[in-house]
Amino acid sequence: MKRRVGKMEIKIVRDVLEKNKELAVQVRARLRKKNRTMFNLMGSPGCGKTALLEKLIPMLKSDELRIGVIEGDVATLNDSLRLQELDVPIAHISTERFGSTCHLGANVVLGALELLEDENMDLVFIENVGNLICPAEYDTGAGGNIVVISVTEGEDKPLKYPQIFHKTEVAIINKIDLVEPVGADLNLLKENIRKVNPSSKIFEISARSGENMEPLREWLQERHGELLIDRK
Amino acid sequence: MKRRVGKMEIKIVRDVLEKNKELAVQVRARLRKKNRTMFNLMGSPGCGKTALLEKLIPMLKSDELRIGVIEGDVATLNDSLRLQELDVPIAHISTERFGSTCHLGANVVLGALELLEDENMDLVFIENVGNLICPAEYDTGAGGNIVVISVTEGEDKPLKYPQIFHKTEVAIINKIDLVEPVGADLNLLKENIRKVNPSSKIFEISARSGENMEPLREWLQERHGELLIDRK
Repeated sequence: MKRRVGKMEIKIVRDVLEKNKELAVQVRARLRKKNRTMFNLMGSPGCGKTALLEKLIPMLKSDELRIGVIEGDVATLNDSLRLQELDVPIAHISTERFGSTCHLGANVVLGALELLEDENMDLVFIENVGNLICPAEYDTGAGGNIVVISVTEGEDKPLKYPQIFHKTEVAIINKIDLVEPVGADLNLLKENIRKVNPSSKIFEISARSGENMEPLREWLQERHGELLIDRK
Repeated sequence: MKRRVGKMEIKIVRDVLEKNKELAVQVRARLRKKNRTMFNLMGSPGCGKTALLEKLIPMLKSDELRIGVIEGDVATLNDSLRLQELDVPIAHISTERFGSTCHLGANVVLGALELLEDENMDLVFIENVGNLICPAEYDTGAGGNIVVISVTEGEDKPLKYPQIFHKTEVAIINKIDLVEPVGADLNLLKENIRKVNPSSKIFEISARSGENMEPLREWLQERHGELLIDRK
């Protein structure tokens, strides 16, 4: 009985993933048409995804680079209300309306991009639902995938949740201002990220104190340019 | 297209939940037969579920109360290796073998209980997969459901992830030794838990420092006794 249920679940997941892949292709086509790039931010609840965007967006915003956000949450508009202060276009996805799903699929991202169609945006951030497992399974159509992990979560998390670290090209270690009170071992955390994904780029920042944000800003700006060139 | 995929997903989830419910009934029957109670610990990655068990189990263990653990993780045996030090029976579930599922269903809990059948146990803890969303959907057959949230995760999490706070009878606020460096507002966090679940019992502890663990131990012991009486 146990195995049968196990197999049934896997089959269902495959069907959904197949459909998701098709929709991710549509997301990419829509971004290309508008000359936009998109980054998908993933991470546990409370790892600091929203705080990161609060710090990062004012640093990135300029006449040449216009930012937009797709905000995903199970419930509440809290994160979008916080980001509204930054005066950027936001599409909020409340997954409560989709069976409280624990991730953003390409279907809802496509809908969000449709809503943002006429906004002035060059670079779009997806803030995915707070979850270190499920979002890794779903291609959103984003050109770049980023995982945020805070030092309070423990050094072994890349090994325990390998899929998301494997799928992402960048790992942002957040809350480095808390390394001392937590007693965190930054080197061990980085070592574990590299065990899972040797080519992962790693940034060590504090979204609260603003420490080390500049290299991350530079990388995002460069990567935005590269992604635009890549697809030409 | 978007809605159709949404609806499809919901239908699938219902099928799986129906099957899960049947298996949870079997879990309860198996526990009853052996005069055992079971508590299901849920929470984000790094909220301190394993650290809590490391502190709690030696406090609970006695000739009268024998403890067992069902340990759920996507990958690695790390948590079970840590708890092995406590000399208690452990069944480890690696969800990588079940499509890397993001929660423990009654199917795998039933399998774990079968493996532990002949162990000397009165009270079984499930340490669920680190995830603040999906485990809330699945009845494991446990008599008590507990959510662990650490002060580093932010005061708004009960509002943003309401299902799990709604489903659990106890919320354990962990890492209170970090309230000051994090700048956390404990009263606001408690207020938000009660907004979602007014009858939730709340414990404020530090699994690291051992602060305030005694009231939690007492409650678990009492609740174990109540659950045994309830089903007679």
